[in-house]
Amino acid sequence: MPQNIKSFTSKFIADLVSGKVIGDPSVEISELSSLGDANKNSISFLSHPKYEKYLSSSAASVVLIDKEINLETDKTLILCKDAYLAYALVSELFSDNISYEIKDYPNTPNSSGIYIHQTASIGSNVTIGPNTFIGANCKIDDNTIIHPNTTILQDVEIGKSCNIFSNTVLGSDGFGFASNGKNYEKIYQLGKLLIGNNVEIGASCCIDRGALENTIIHDGVKLDNLIHIAHNVVIGENSAIAASCAIAGSTKIGNNFRMGGLSGVLGHLSICNDVTVGANTLITKDINQSGEYIGIMPAQEKKKWAKSSIFIKKREE
Amino acid sequence: MPQNIKSFTSKFIADLVSGKVIGDPSVEISELSSLGDANKNSISFLSHPKYEKYLSSSAASVVLIDKEINLETDKTLILCKDAYLAYALVSELFSDNISYEIKDYPNTPNSSGIYIHQTASIGSNVTIGPNTFIGANCKIDDNTIIHPNTTILQDVEIGKSCNIFSNTVLGSDGFGFASNGKNYEKIYQLGKLLIGNNVEIGASCCIDRGALENTIIHDGVKLDNLIHIAHNVVIGENSAIAASCAIAGSTKIGNNFRMGGLSGVLGHLSICNDVTVGANTLITKDINQSGEYIGIMPAQEKKKWAKSSIFIKKREE
Amino acid sequence: MPQNIKSFTSKFIADLVSGKVIGDPSVEISELSSLGDANKNSISFLSHPKYEKYLSSSAASVVLIDKEINLETDKTLILCKDAYLAYALVSELFSDNISYEIKDYPNTPNSSGIYIHQTASIGSNVTIGPNTFIGANCKIDDNTIIHPNTTILQDVEIGKSCNIFSNTVLGSDGFGFASNGKNYEKIYQLGKLLIGNNVEIGASCCIDRGALENTIIHDGVKLDNLIHIAHNVVIGENSAIAASCAIAGSTKIGNNFRMGGLSGVLGHLSICNDVTVGANTLITKDINQSGEYIGIMPAQEKKKWAKSSIFIKKREE
Repeated sequence: MPQNIKSFTSKFIADLVSGKVIGDPSVEISELSSLGDANKNSISFLSHPKYEKYLSSSAASVVLIDKEINLETDKTLILCKDAYLAYALVSELFSDNISYEIKDYPNTPNSSGIYIHQTASIGSNVTIGPNTFIGANCKIDDNTIIHPNTTILQDVEIGKSCNIFSNTVLGSDGFGFASNGKNYEKIYQLGKLLIGNNVEIGASCCIDRGALENTIIHDGVKLDNLIHIAHNVVIGENSAIAASCAIAGSTKIGNNFRMGGLSGVLGHLSICNDVTVGANTLITKDINQSGEYIGIMPAQEKKKWAKSSIFIKKREE
Repeated sequence: MPQNIKSFTSKFIADLVSGKVIGDPSVEISELSSLGDANKNSISFLSHPKYEKYLSSSAASVVLIDKEINLETDKTLILCKDAYLAYALVSELFSDNISYEIKDYPNTPNSSGIYIHQTASIGSNVTIGPNTFIGANCKIDDNTIIHPNTTILQDVEIGKSCNIFSNTVLGSDGFGFASNGKNYEKIYQLGKLLIGNNVEIGASCCIDRGALENTIIHDGVKLDNLIHIAHNVVIGENSAIAASCAIAGSTKIGNNFRMGGLSGVLGHLSICNDVTVGANTLITKDINQSGEYIGIMPAQEKKKWAKSSIFIKKREE
Repeated sequence: MPQNIKSFTSKFIADLVSGKVIGDPSVEISELSSLGDANKNSISFLSHPKYEKYLSSSAASVVLIDKEINLETDKTLILCKDAYLAYALVSELFSDNISYEIKDYPNTPNSSGIYIHQTASIGSNVTIGPNTFIGANCKIDDNTIIHPNTTILQDVEIGKSCNIFSNTVLGSDGFGFASNGKNYEKIYQLGKLLIGNNVEIGASCCIDRGALENTIIHDGVKLDNLIHIAHNVVIGENSAIAASCAIAGSTKIGNNFRMGGLSGVLGHLSICNDVTVGANTLITKDINQSGEYIGIMPAQEKKKWAKSSIFIKKREE
């Protein structure tokens, strides 16, 4: 679709990323590519010295580069304080504007599949994909995007400029049951789910609303796909959690928490600010000291693992 | 919405939970709150001695309390055999009645997004949320609730008074393939998925139907979110499984099984009644003895973990 | 539904599976059953000597059997090179043809809930379930089945004869953010998701499209339910991944990869062909040697585990 080509000068890009052009400020680029895939219309980026070797063979005309990387090249460079951050800023220029307007789907019957409860309120410039459900007492603030097939069940409040990916479920019942000695009585869930501003939630996540108090996801939190957040959990500002993690009920997590994939935190714990947790790790106790925590069982060739495994199990002797 | 306020006397509550009022039987409450969040209209509960310290400062007028907790207070107490169970019973009083009637969604085109196959049968008083799919040969018995965006593919039978949360998939194909030496031939899945009465299934769960025999979820089972149950699995009565667990194919699990989050059971195993499994634990062998089983690799500060990890790997020497 | 009974002679089946009839070539069967559940109308299969004991008591009239299993029986046997593979081939005979034609759903308003963007292209004989979303620049090739409530967001190309189960999300944004020192800038995702031919993807999986390059799932890959595949990942031909696994960003995996459930591979790794990974195992380094790798922390009774756990943690001393 040639009519859609976006083209920018290196000077324009340098201004956008607060960088400095070394070379030709008028060279135009119309693609963002990795060094390896670049062509003469491309801008690329080099944010780690170990990729320097790819620079000379790359066809990119313009390269975003960290100030501390020194090298000879005939390409136009844009020196940046942080080339990876500059890449993020440039990526937005090449992003398609998402539209879920029904007129874009001509093969479709005249229906949106969107259900918005009469008690829900939707801010301005909110994008809602087809087949999305928004239930009772929900509020969605300005500029938030809800991708298709998402379910926002009830008592969920979402802030400004959030991005909620498809098939995610927000505001489902927490897992609350009391044994009566024979089987389980359901504990009806009466709390809300409150989500701050600039939160991104990946696809197929589940975040339960609170039991009595509220589940709270603070501003700037980023969640990858297939993440479970149980009732009454609080996640602090600017935390980032990778895919397939689970946070159990009533755990309170501080700001800038980071967790690798397939990891979890048990319930009713307190995690201080600035904690990083490795992948496939379970946190079983409060953490009061910021730092990095890991509990990965090392993978080995089967025969070696079998020996390690027997050794671990023999410890009781 | 003041017209919706529900108000109950302490005497009414005591009768509901088979408890005994100590104090004023006519005091009225209209909210259920934790001790910390309570106000003078609140009933709260105290089910563990370690929370006794919050009682005096709580504004709650009425508190459900275990018989064995002795304390001085000017609040009205309701002595119960099990205050946590009493809280569960009271929670239902304050729960909104779920309705997915299309008239509640005025912004929506006149369509439910609900697809029910002509061979499916739906009992009385069944609630079905918008954008739900119910395929061939499915049966849903009385008083069951299916939340929005749920997919019930085919050959699924669901009992009475179940609660199936959003974006869950029931009756999908099991993961069955036979190698022909070059690639995989699909094993077409011909069995059913049978779900008993009073089963609760969380959001974004996947339960496959059987390959030849049936997958069976017995009465009273409670599943949290994002749980995978493979083909031919049987889960015994009143089992409770936390979020993000996976049970592999053909495993048979007894009654009252309990499992923490992010855990799994390998396939073709047999687990006896009354087994509890910790979080982030993999069961790799039959269990014939009821009890508690754990396989968590302990999380440590990164530096310490690195040492433990090297030590574990060196065991082969 | 007696009018739907399918009936086949043992001769017909033997020809289908390239086997040899020992007994009556004209005996008719109309059901495929396990040995234990079989009746006189059943064909069953025996692919492992340990199940031989079930043969004599089985009511099956015809049994698919590995050539190397020698036994006396009055049943009609079909000798096969691989009885399990033969079972796979026979299973297709008894599979219902899936139809999501709206006329099969008489209780439903006249709408499909299917949204296909005007820039998407759909091949011939493609089956699309209700409430499915297919966004901008997507291509779906011939004979592929998309089950209900699936979301194919944008820039996704799916090959021939694929099977995509319900509530799966394809082409969502990868988890890409760059810190600006205070919070996160989004890295807009500009790549595609390319899926080959004969790929099966289970329910509630999430596969992100690439950041700059593409995410690629090669021919013949089989994914179970609830699997996360991050941006820029490449999965080689005929790989099979069990439920609840996660592959982190930019990892390149060779052909014939196999991985048990609840396992993961960290990002930016390279895994050679013919690697098998156990369940609940995290791969943290490149693998250059084909073989089997395991990192399961053994499960034990709670008391024994506690001792092992303390022992592991004491290693730093």
